[in-house]
Amino acid sequence: MITGEVLQALRELLGAERVFRDDATRALYATDETPKSYLPEAVLFPTTHEQVVGIVRLANRHLLPLVPRGAGSGNVGGALPAPGSLVVSFECMNRILEFDPADRLIVTQPGVVTDDIDALAASAGLMYAPDPGSGGYCRIGGNLAMNAAGPRAVKYGATRDHVLGLRAVTGDGREIRVGARTTKYATAYDLSRLLVGSEGTLALITEATLRLLPAPEAVASLRVCFDSDTAACAAVGRIMAQPVLPCALEFMDRRAIDAIREYGVADGLPAGTRALLMVEADGAADQLPRQIAALEAALAGAGLLEIRSGFTPADIARLWTARKSLSHAVKKIAPLKINEDVVVPVSRLAELVGAIDALAATWRLPIVSFGHAGNGNLHVNLMVHPDDADEMARAGACHDALIETVLGLGGSLSGEHGIGSEKRRYVARELDAETLALMRDLKRWFDPNGILNPGKKLPDPS
Amino acid sequence: MITGEVLQALRELLGAERVFRDDATRALYATDETPKSYLPEAVLFPTTHEQVVGIVRLANRHLLPLVPRGAGSGNVGGALPAPGSLVVSFECMNRILEFDPADRLIVTQPGVVTDDIDALAASAGLMYAPDPGSGGYCRIGGNLAMNAAGPRAVKYGATRDHVLGLRAVTGDGREIRVGARTTKYATAYDLSRLLVGSEGTLALITEATLRLLPAPEAVASLRVCFDSDTAACAAVGRIMAQPVLPCALEFMDRRAIDAIREYGVADGLPAGTRALLMVEADGAADQLPRQIAALEAALAGAGLLEIRSGFTPADIARLWTARKSLSHAVKKIAPLKINEDVVVPVSRLAELVGAIDALAATWRLPIVSFGHAGNGNLHVNLMVHPDDADEMARAGACHDALIETVLGLGGSLSGEHGIGSEKRRYVARELDAETLALMRDLKRWFDPNGILNPGKKLPDPS
Repeated sequence: MITGEVLQALRELLGAERVFRDDATRALYATDETPKSYLPEAVLFPTTHEQVVGIVRLANRHLLPLVPRGAGSGNVGGALPAPGSLVVSFECMNRILEFDPADRLIVTQPGVVTDDIDALAASAGLMYAPDPGSGGYCRIGGNLAMNAAGPRAVKYGATRDHVLGLRAVTGDGREIRVGARTTKYATAYDLSRLLVGSEGTLALITEATLRLLPAPEAVASLRVCFDSDTAACAAVGRIMAQPVLPCALEFMDRRAIDAIREYGVADGLPAGTRALLMVEADGAADQLPRQIAALEAALAGAGLLEIRSGFTPADIARLWTARKSLSHAVKKIAPLKINEDVVVPVSRLAELVGAIDALAATWRLPIVSFGHAGNGNLHVNLMVHPDDADEMARAGACHDALIETVLGLGGSLSGEHGIGSEKRRYVARELDAETLALMRDLKRWFDPNGILNPGKKLPDPS
Repeated sequence: MITGEVLQALRELLGAERVFRDDATRALYATDETPKSYLPEAVLFPTTHEQVVGIVRLANRHLLPLVPRGAGSGNVGGALPAPGSLVVSFECMNRILEFDPADRLIVTQPGVVTDDIDALAASAGLMYAPDPGSGGYCRIGGNLAMNAAGPRAVKYGATRDHVLGLRAVTGDGREIRVGARTTKYATAYDLSRLLVGSEGTLALITEATLRLLPAPEAVASLRVCFDSDTAACAAVGRIMAQPVLPCALEFMDRRAIDAIREYGVADGLPAGTRALLMVEADGAADQLPRQIAALEAALAGAGLLEIRSGFTPADIARLWTARKSLSHAVKKIAPLKINEDVVVPVSRLAELVGAIDALAATWRLPIVSFGHAGNGNLHVNLMVHPDDADEMARAGACHDALIETVLGLGGSLSGEHGIGSEKRRYVARELDAETLALMRDLKRWFDPNGILNPGKKLPDPS
């Protein structure tokens, strides 16, 4: 419980207008993209690194849980308030501090919208490669916390691969400034890449130096239809076993296709289409035909129904709007999605979708799968009615079996969404006890009093 | 001092034939590429992860320093034995455990020679991108310890960027298994990338899962001559500010050129050549002319004397043999090189080489500079006669001024060689006191008794 004394100290630190305790604000910051909701004690809007240091030190002295938050667009409860917690919203730390095209880097506060970083980079012929589906509204701080990715990761990697340096504050208020402004660096211990993906449980990131890449001159897209999920995924395996790396290799099963018909994405699909791939190549304009030819050659095989090419930039934009709307559009099928973000070695992807089909039949549930197939990363959505107890029980058992399948294929719980509060119960199945104990110890080292995003990332000790 | 009891335990653990205490072996493992030499107490040759765990736990109980070692080809004393230490040579952990072309990965023990990994990858049309100059004899474990890189880093990144997962042992014998077999992963804390570049001071790496990339179809090279160092480095800046990323962008000053004339690298250089760039592009064969044209356009500018292209594969191989021999060839100039591996933002590279010229004049020393200019990473070698006290004093002052210059340009002490024992005294100039304290704490957390590679990476507390 927040005391008057603490409240007074916070108001002095941030200014009274940046400390919110009213019910409307607390309600607004009680949720994220999960269906859950927990009221925080207060919501804080710092604007500087120093203010964040002050908040953490105060919270550490008074043992107040802090829940860092970007846009609240996460899928796993990473930004859900813990009981009695203060939400630290980074929305007002939304300035790009430096843009240096010559050294291909950008220094940003955590509250900047991800696509805005890419747009600024584009103004100088550069790009910020990670492109989460929520890029138009998510904040880079959340991307850093979760090691977010998107379609381009198949060619360019995830958030972690684009971080040159960070400024951050540990749970006991130690300040960290690590990394460099250079593309090579072998001086200090690399804490940057440890903090990326640690979901705000080790330190709060207050500044990031991000690497930019040359923007590709042109992009070409293919829409590819298959008569089954497994045929499509076998084609994904063939693409990833030949030399031309696509810059996107997205899979949609038939339910996913149905969910976004209104965008025209399914117009004129051949009869019998049960799965669709979106395949994209980027590079020099005169080099695209050759890349596309190589990708088409790899796509050829059993179950291929049609390859459509020749899309205009407007067509491509429409395809991506449709693809990116999927995360919300599936809710037409049933009000609640139990949303998995599993990842398997790409050579096992066809086995995974085969197993998912079997699970859907066994447990009589609509399952919608789509995602970043080139990375073996599938968003598997069990669509349920939360007030149907029988269905919910079947979904629980099905969910459980899905995780076992993924781990049996050498995969992992999360490719890009992270663990948050919602997947913690499965972590101990994937990580061995000794590694897990080590991670708990590491958490204590960064955050001895456990004030940073408690109840996230790591499971409770059994 | 190693006791009979410990020796007996080691022999039981490894087999008597893998524990060496004879003078000849100890002398062989007393040195690395620095001119220094310290006799270890014994040299151990484990063959399995379990044996390494056993060694570490025993050493931790008896407070015996362990010095991990690959090929001993490092430049900064990273593998130099500490007083009373046991060298843990990974040379016999030299098996590739798994090669999986479909998932583009390789699982390797630490004692495998780096180029052998690339060669195996090449057999399936893939490549292991990091290519240190010592690749023909260095071991991947040393590369992981130092975050080694090479010419291709300008396009493909350093060792850290190609690690999917690790198995390792902390200083108090905790076993770590982290990372995944997938190219995207957001489940556990990412300890892999923290351990890479930690120089064996946090944990001993016993197994690594490395990412492979499609091998480029073809390579084209340019040899480019300039009338000054600064003109060459200005051209590097222009190349890195346009969209075509070269896969190598190497700089040599006139002394470096002189040192390798015997390889024919300098045959037919235009009069007045004072600096040379090796520029390379890779990709689809029919796409190379376009890439080369873009690079040539960027090279055009003040001080450009000649661009030579049309090299055969044999020519290119000869150029690289020459380039890779430089690290040793410079010793013709004077018996001892004081070898720096500084890195600056690429936009500041011309300023750096200008400052180095001035330093050479001020301190009356031959300085040879060459390196990975596209990353802003320069190997700066102060050539000296160790028995000339006056020259050594000047070299010390010059060295010191060089470091100040680099830090003033926003750069760092090391781009790829690491810190080892030889650069520790400068670390506190680069890292702020709080970050340094945090790194020391982190070292204690991984290695409470300080048995892992003591006296390396971090400076002694002042």
